[in-house]
Amino acid sequence: MSQTRQFQSLADARPPYFVGIDLGGTTVKLGVLDETGRPLCWNSLATHVERGPEDAACRMGEAVRETVAGLGISLSAVARAGLGSPGILDVRNGVMVNPTNFPGWGGFPLRDRVSHHCGLPVAFVNDANAAAYGEFWVGSGRSFQSLILLTLGTGVGCGIIIGDVIVEGENGHGAECGHVLIDSSDTARLCSCGMTGHLEAYASAMAVIKRAREAIDSGQPTSLTRRIAEGAELTPRLVAEEAQSGDALSTKIVFETARYLALGIVSLLHTIDPAGVLLGGAMTFGARESELGRRFLARIFEEVKCRTFPTLAAKLQIDFATLGPDAGYIGAAGIARLEHYKSLRKPAVWP
Amino acid sequence: MSQTRQFQSLADARPPYFVGIDLGGTTVKLGVLDETGRPLCWNSLATHVERGPEDAACRMGEAVRETVAGLGISLSAVARAGLGSPGILDVRNGVMVNPTNFPGWGGFPLRDRVSHHCGLPVAFVNDANAAAYGEFWVGSGRSFQSLILLTLGTGVGCGIIIGDVIVEGENGHGAECGHVLIDSSDTARLCSCGMTGHLEAYASAMAVIKRAREAIDSGQPTSLTRRIAEGAELTPRLVAEEAQSGDALSTKIVFETARYLALGIVSLLHTIDPAGVLLGGAMTFGARESELGRRFLARIFEEVKCRTFPTLAAKLQIDFATLGPDAGYIGAAGIARLEHYKSLRKPAVWP
Repeated sequence: MSQTRQFQSLADARPPYFVGIDLGGTTVKLGVLDETGRPLCWNSLATHVERGPEDAACRMGEAVRETVAGLGISLSAVARAGLGSPGILDVRNGVMVNPTNFPGWGGFPLRDRVSHHCGLPVAFVNDANAAAYGEFWVGSGRSFQSLILLTLGTGVGCGIIIGDVIVEGENGHGAECGHVLIDSSDTARLCSCGMTGHLEAYASAMAVIKRAREAIDSGQPTSLTRRIAEGAELTPRLVAEEAQSGDALSTKIVFETARYLALGIVSLLHTIDPAGVLLGGAMTFGARESELGRRFLARIFEEVKCRTFPTLAAKLQIDFATLGPDAGYIGAAGIARLEHYKSLRKPAVWP
Repeated sequence: MSQTRQFQSLADARPPYFVGIDLGGTTVKLGVLDETGRPLCWNSLATHVERGPEDAACRMGEAVRETVAGLGISLSAVARAGLGSPGILDVRNGVMVNPTNFPGWGGFPLRDRVSHHCGLPVAFVNDANAAAYGEFWVGSGRSFQSLILLTLGTGVGCGIIIGDVIVEGENGHGAECGHVLIDSSDTARLCSCGMTGHLEAYASAMAVIKRAREAIDSGQPTSLTRRIAEGAELTPRLVAEEAQSGDALSTKIVFETARYLALGIVSLLHTIDPAGVLLGGAMTFGARESELGRRFLARIFEEVKCRTFPTLAAKLQIDFATLGPDAGYIGAAGIARLEHYKSLRKPAVWP
């Protein structure tokens, strides 16, 4: 039940090859990339969480073998695979820790079983870190030596890359920047994690919907009311559409979201001082090409400038990510490549 | 005009040796350490900022040669020196960037001139990062794989160490965590950097003095009023003394400071997830041995626990630093050692 798409002629590809796997709650995506980060082939299969981790590990392994064989290359030409997984990970042991959306998968030796089934060494990585590494390697962060990626989806995910270091943290909580504090007051909003004042409680898709709903319910005039009455679902996309059509409340919600992001970004800048900050995730898809997206970035920049050092603001780049939903498997392959060169004691980032 | 102190018999010392230099606005401290981080000898000289950087580089170089010779070892037994310098640095080029307290020193090739005068390769590092590395190598962070050091002095300094990576940032602004945002409201306090709501505006020595002064001026009853009338200077130490004697207002100020620190620490935890957070700097000297110090740490922990993930709080250690004013030169020597082993392509952290 897998879909396959072929990108690139093998004639142009540069070995060795790397496989990236992006494990999601519904779908597993995987790709074969060459040494330069060009995807040669893309494939997907259903996760079937309920069948348990051994079943999934087995099918992921088979899918890797089939995809590689389908390309007409031998498995021995693939140096390594990378497996991006959601949730908190015990990276050293290749295990998920209490994964709420994967009941029964916690403690299962996922990395090693996927490795067994596909016949390749496997690098294990958090999916947000993988996406960040994808953008760092071949996406809109490819000119940066360090970056922070914030992914705006149901929650606010994050990955931090400094040179060839992925900030994973001692307990798998590194780069959980959706939970950076932006409001310490008693009236701070409740975050999905149960605590208050975190960035995610203001700038995630859920938070945007909640803030829009509160504004609509308070009776503020807005074209959102009409759209919803006509059957449209209240989503960040709807709010963006109405903002683009000139609705004042929708515009206000979009730019308030930019301001909240800026508050979180300031603390990150003063901790990491990266070359760039990228915004990705479903909420940003298409924004890079839109006028509203450009104004959104400008509003973030304006607020950040008021709150950071001029020398830092002068060089900082803030942009949208470019790899979209492919960032996860591309980044997982990139981290596999990084581990491969580390194992050879060669630098993976060429001058 | 230098002071020398000898620590350790050479018979026990393990070569190679490393020199650490801690450049301050008034005094330069330097030490010779062995491979295991034991200080063999300690020396200090006046900085004389007004004489310019070449003069200081020359005298630092001479002091290194004299100190090494005084120990009875040859310069060739010293593998490398480390130079910790205040302010924003261009680490790659070994240069200070616009140093306010060192007029005329900006752009001077400080690292290379010190190297020239002492006859050793020199590693160049920000002083707060050096202090953090000192605690990481041989201080209260020696059992940690990663740590954040917050130094509470006139300002709030910070150093972040992740394995053998020192978070320096793209523009020398890495680990400027005194400027993490803890209050985004319109009534947030003004920071020394000119912006508002930063941790430093609440938890530095200057901030503690300001908050105490405001409370006294508002007429709140406190034994601080009597002490100041008797000629005592209003300092964080005085506030701590009165808190230890049971003064309610002083106690409140101390524990509010703990709460403010916790707000900043939460954002750092969700970005870095280090094994430990250490508090150092003049404001904390002596606190590790005091009952008030223990209660101060407990108050920080209590507030952090309310605002972070249980899995993270369960393993996190928060403690005071132990190297005191020696952290800077010890850490600079440690970073020299790290660069030495990197140049040999050997791991510096033994299992």
